[in-house]
Amino acid sequence: MGFLLPITGLAALLVAAISARLILKESPGPPRVREISGAIYEGATAYLKRQYTTIWAFAFAIAVLLLFIPAWGWQASVAFLVGALSSTIAGVLGMHVAIRANSRTANAARAGVDRALKIAFRGGLVMGMVAVGIGLLGVLLFYHLFGNPMFILPYGFGASAVALFARVGGGIYTKTADIGADLVGKVEKGIPEDDPRNPAVIADNVGDNVGDVAGMGADLFESYVASIIAAMVVGWTVQATYGSAAVTLPLWIAAMGIFASIVSIFFVRVKKGKDPSYALNSASIAAISITAAGSLFLVVYMFGWGNGWGLFVAVLSGLMAGLVVGMTSDYFTNRIHRPAQFIAHSAQSGAAIDLLAGFSFGLLSVVLPIIAIATAVVVAFVAAGGAVSVTAGFYGICLAGVGMLSVTGMIVASDAYGPIADNAGGIVEQSGMPGRVRRVTDTLDSVGNTTKAICKGFAIGSAALTAIALFATYTSEPFANIQTLNLLDPKVVAGFFIGGATVALFCALTILAVGRNSFRMVGEVRRQFKKIPGLMEGKAKPDYARCIDIATRGALRELIIPGISALVIPLVVGLVLGKAALGGFLAGSIGVGLVFALLMANAGGAWDNAKKYIELGRFGGKGSQTHAAAVIGDTVGDPFKDTAGPSLNILIKLMSWVALISAPLLLA
Amino acid sequence: MGFLLPITGLAALLVAAISARLILKESPGPPRVREISGAIYEGATAYLKRQYTTIWAFAFAIAVLLLFIPAWGWQASVAFLVGALSSTIAGVLGMHVAIRANSRTANAARAGVDRALKIAFRGGLVMGMVAVGIGLLGVLLFYHLFGNPMFILPYGFGASAVALFARVGGGIYTKTADIGADLVGKVEKGIPEDDPRNPAVIADNVGDNVGDVAGMGADLFESYVASIIAAMVVGWTVQATYGSAAVTLPLWIAAMGIFASIVSIFFVRVKKGKDPSYALNSASIAAISITAAGSLFLVVYMFGWGNGWGLFVAVLSGLMAGLVVGMTSDYFTNRIHRPAQFIAHSAQSGAAIDLLAGFSFGLLSVVLPIIAIATAVVVAFVAAGGAVSVTAGFYGICLAGVGMLSVTGMIVASDAYGPIADNAGGIVEQSGMPGRVRRVTDTLDSVGNTTKAICKGFAIGSAALTAIALFATYTSEPFANIQTLNLLDPKVVAGFFIGGATVALFCALTILAVGRNSFRMVGEVRRQFKKIPGLMEGKAKPDYARCIDIATRGALRELIIPGISALVIPLVVGLVLGKAALGGFLAGSIGVGLVFALLMANAGGAWDNAKKYIELGRFGGKGSQTHAAAVIGDTVGDPFKDTAGPSLNILIKLMSWVALISAPLLLA
Repeated sequence: MGFLLPITGLAALLVAAISARLILKESPGPPRVREISGAIYEGATAYLKRQYTTIWAFAFAIAVLLLFIPAWGWQASVAFLVGALSSTIAGVLGMHVAIRANSRTANAARAGVDRALKIAFRGGLVMGMVAVGIGLLGVLLFYHLFGNPMFILPYGFGASAVALFARVGGGIYTKTADIGADLVGKVEKGIPEDDPRNPAVIADNVGDNVGDVAGMGADLFESYVASIIAAMVVGWTVQATYGSAAVTLPLWIAAMGIFASIVSIFFVRVKKGKDPSYALNSASIAAISITAAGSLFLVVYMFGWGNGWGLFVAVLSGLMAGLVVGMTSDYFTNRIHRPAQFIAHSAQSGAAIDLLAGFSFGLLSVVLPIIAIATAVVVAFVAAGGAVSVTAGFYGICLAGVGMLSVTGMIVASDAYGPIADNAGGIVEQSGMPGRVRRVTDTLDSVGNTTKAICKGFAIGSAALTAIALFATYTSEPFANIQTLNLLDPKVVAGFFIGGATVALFCALTILAVGRNSFRMVGEVRRQFKKIPGLMEGKAKPDYARCIDIATRGALRELIIPGISALVIPLVVGLVLGKAALGGFLAGSIGVGLVFALLMANAGGAWDNAKKYIELGRFGGKGSQTHAAAVIGDTVGDPFKDTAGPSLNILIKLMSWVALISAPLLLA
Repeated sequence: MGFLLPITGLAALLVAAISARLILKESPGPPRVREISGAIYEGATAYLKRQYTTIWAFAFAIAVLLLFIPAWGWQASVAFLVGALSSTIAGVLGMHVAIRANSRTANAARAGVDRALKIAFRGGLVMGMVAVGIGLLGVLLFYHLFGNPMFILPYGFGASAVALFARVGGGIYTKTADIGADLVGKVEKGIPEDDPRNPAVIADNVGDNVGDVAGMGADLFESYVASIIAAMVVGWTVQATYGSAAVTLPLWIAAMGIFASIVSIFFVRVKKGKDPSYALNSASIAAISITAAGSLFLVVYMFGWGNGWGLFVAVLSGLMAGLVVGMTSDYFTNRIHRPAQFIAHSAQSGAAIDLLAGFSFGLLSVVLPIIAIATAVVVAFVAAGGAVSVTAGFYGICLAGVGMLSVTGMIVASDAYGPIADNAGGIVEQSGMPGRVRRVTDTLDSVGNTTKAICKGFAIGSAALTAIALFATYTSEPFANIQTLNLLDPKVVAGFFIGGATVALFCALTILAVGRNSFRMVGEVRRQFKKIPGLMEGKAKPDYARCIDIATRGALRELIIPGISALVIPLVVGLVLGKAALGGFLAGSIGVGLVFALLMANAGGAWDNAKKYIELGRFGGKGSQTHAAAVIGDTVGDPFKDTAGPSLNILIKLMSWVALISAPLLLA
């Protein structure tokens, strides 16, 4: 039956190809639309080319270093480079299609919500299916080549390293442009969002694609691959308990998730009079349900009732935790719920109170997801037999991660949908289509905000479980081989504190980067409004290229230091303080990182949606003092939710990768 | 020689009494000054009365509960109540004198900086000396009564419980008033700080006293007492290694610190042409140096060179860590350094960029202090012989805490100096003294900001070391008796995550409380400006009492839930998940709590001083757009640095106390 696995991977790629074809068959719209879309395409590809050139310089350097670490060698370097390449392909390909989908969604919006939503969703689907298809096939390839899953690890490491750089770079790019466009255009000049007179508007649209689409894709691709590999590696060591099927079970669950996601595509259909977000959410729920049911069938078939039952509970605990984290994010950020509305209400007392309210709700939103993840860890550990064998318990935790991530295809699809809808709205605005069309894309965009929040929660939850799985792998037999990681050992305590501090350092560096670069962007946009005669009257064109250039240069310059820190600090801690301290370091980074990732994603989302709630006409609506206050909150939230927050997901995983890969060095 | 210990405690109280007399001998100033001072006095005492009534209701409830915990009993209840009483006395007494010092400092400012600084410093000194005097005497009393230091623990627990409630309540009060006064008075109406037309101005002044003076005093009193007791308890268990002197050494170091602080008072003298902050800082440096030298003498005398040397290094590592944490806080918050200036510079692009810059620098400021504390932990552990005996290593960590806190008297004095100088400035403004006098109090105030930042860093550093010492005590023999706290045990991991989430919850609750209450205050101040005819013209008096009432009611209502959470959550974790999970919980809370405490204190201080830097005339000065942006940053920072941040110091200690005290329940 093993042939079913590569076939599922290929099926995912086939679905991606069909979706891409269906998109390309749509009309790209009138000349003005094509012109704008072309400008976005040009800016995005130019940026990605330069970004991946920088990233690949690092990737080659790491591949060379791997040659010198005992236990690895040229196979590891090759796997690493293929992992890096897979991540690059998934990001670039998905983004190319997404940009094609933007203009076609804008054009289709003239015919109504359903048609436009379908195109936007298909654009995201390409990204999602490419990610899971390549991911599954890549893992299968190296498993087939090397036999022992341990040697697939560098493949995941490659994906992770590229993901971090891409996430940080894309995150800085998108927020530089967004803040520059908003602060001068919307706040100072009072022109609408996406107005073509705004010099930073094209850079802003480019940013949505290189940050939100390519970045999130790379993030979830990495989590997906990492969770499968970690589970296989730990599965290898529990074969005595569970038999050799323990190694392949993660692959089968992943395949089941792909199958479930493909089936669930047919649920994406807007019913008359129903909120379109219903269409996307019901597809996600369907995917999760089918995966859960299919996993039960799988484990019972592969392990029998006795052993299978516990493993199923482990998988299920991951799926459930993912659901709780996602729904909490939705509650705290969606404008139909109390928190976002309360923040909007607070904005009446000014920006400071708006900010404090959002920050507090962000902190509050941390509690339930963390309890859900902690519960999933304990339940999965116990269910898989952790009381008898610690490694079996770890296997359960890894399976929880695989369970949560099995529906990645669908999650990425509904997430990438968001920026496509957002961009379509921008194109509608810039090409001067009638207000009726803009209202259609606004509806799509508001749906995108909800799905985006849920997916962000999902990305964080899965990152935490994946990082814990990698951490467990790091401590286990062929690696650091730590039996007890004692929090009463001062070196572990020191590592633990430094791990927490590293998270703070990383957030500081990325937010400072956005601040610095935005400062330059604000200056440039102000300059253009002052120096280009007739710009405000719409008689002259702004110099879009200069804004794109500022965003590009800044992002490339600023991504290097955070990226290198993430690679070097864990290595230094391990070499100086030893393998136990490095274990403490990982624990500290995951603990503090999880709090900050949730805080930043949810506070940022809440500020954003509070602003949008006011824009619906509440508390004075657009142009009021209250709105101005909420815009400040939204701007502060921008790098929280789209730069530092999501980068943390990858940071905590990448640092675990570094620990894992460098473990042979620490033992030597 | 044992008689020297109580004599040192009494000497501290004597210095406090003399300082108080010297203050009261000064002229309380003209009628208008006395009138304002009287109003502040009235508001503050009325609030403290109600606050401590609420707190004591909880204190009695806890004392009753202690009767039912095995191993404790009535002695524990009595010690608990005396600890609670000591904290209350230290807070109330210090604050009474501080308010007397306010008006006299204002009056003396007419004669120049030196005289005014002396009075303000003496006001703080009363607070500092009362705290260390009562602390040392209280510990001595119960050590004398019970013989075994273990039974002094409830004394510290009592001090801690009262401190948390007082800190949260005072923090909410002061920021409610401050934000209300600033947002409407300064921002909307454009009247100066401390203008008597502002209805919230008296409440604001009251808040400085109940929050910054009484709250910080209770905080450091608790750290001081806790560090001594923890070191004595652990010292009791290492008598086999170090002899019985290990139990009394902490007392001697504390006494040495008091002696050093008293001697250093004579360094507080403003030299012509020198920055007055030089006077306060040189006194602190003198106190630290004398304590270090004295401790070397002490340990060599008590333990001989062989053992003594290592213990001295432990003490020194604490003193050094305190210095690094304080100096880092100074660097990141003082307006003469780059961060505050950069934030001010960023404010030119608007409030959002100002906020992002401050938040990033706050995150950055976390790194060095955490490394310093981690280093102190490892150095103290190793120096005290942790390689041979883990308990001896713990003893070293406890001594590092005692070393850091031995100079508490001086630290509290220079900290309480800040709000006194601030209040004096307020009184000068409200009583219409000439601008020359205001410039004197402004100079004093700016000095206060620096010392305040350093003390805040010190309070955080000492809280971390104290919490680690209490955590070590919790895991040791007569308590939870945990040999290894294994981070690979999923229950410990779950506890660890929940500990981090609790910190987030606590921050959220306290900031939300400030936000909610400020919202009410803003409404009331706006109402008064609208409804009281002639208020803006200075022809009618505002209704100060109503603002005081809003701040009071809000603080009392809002302090209860965070306070109860801090007491109940660790208990629940221990009872449900067991003693090991509670250990993980404490580790998680300390790790995440330390990051947030530093972030909030330093970001808040940096925003504040960036605003003050602009007010000196930079980037457009007062009234400019840049200034308005910086005011928003400052307002966001207010509850960060004066409510949530400092409360975290106590939270992480109090939760360790709860674990310690409830340990017998968990073993049963």
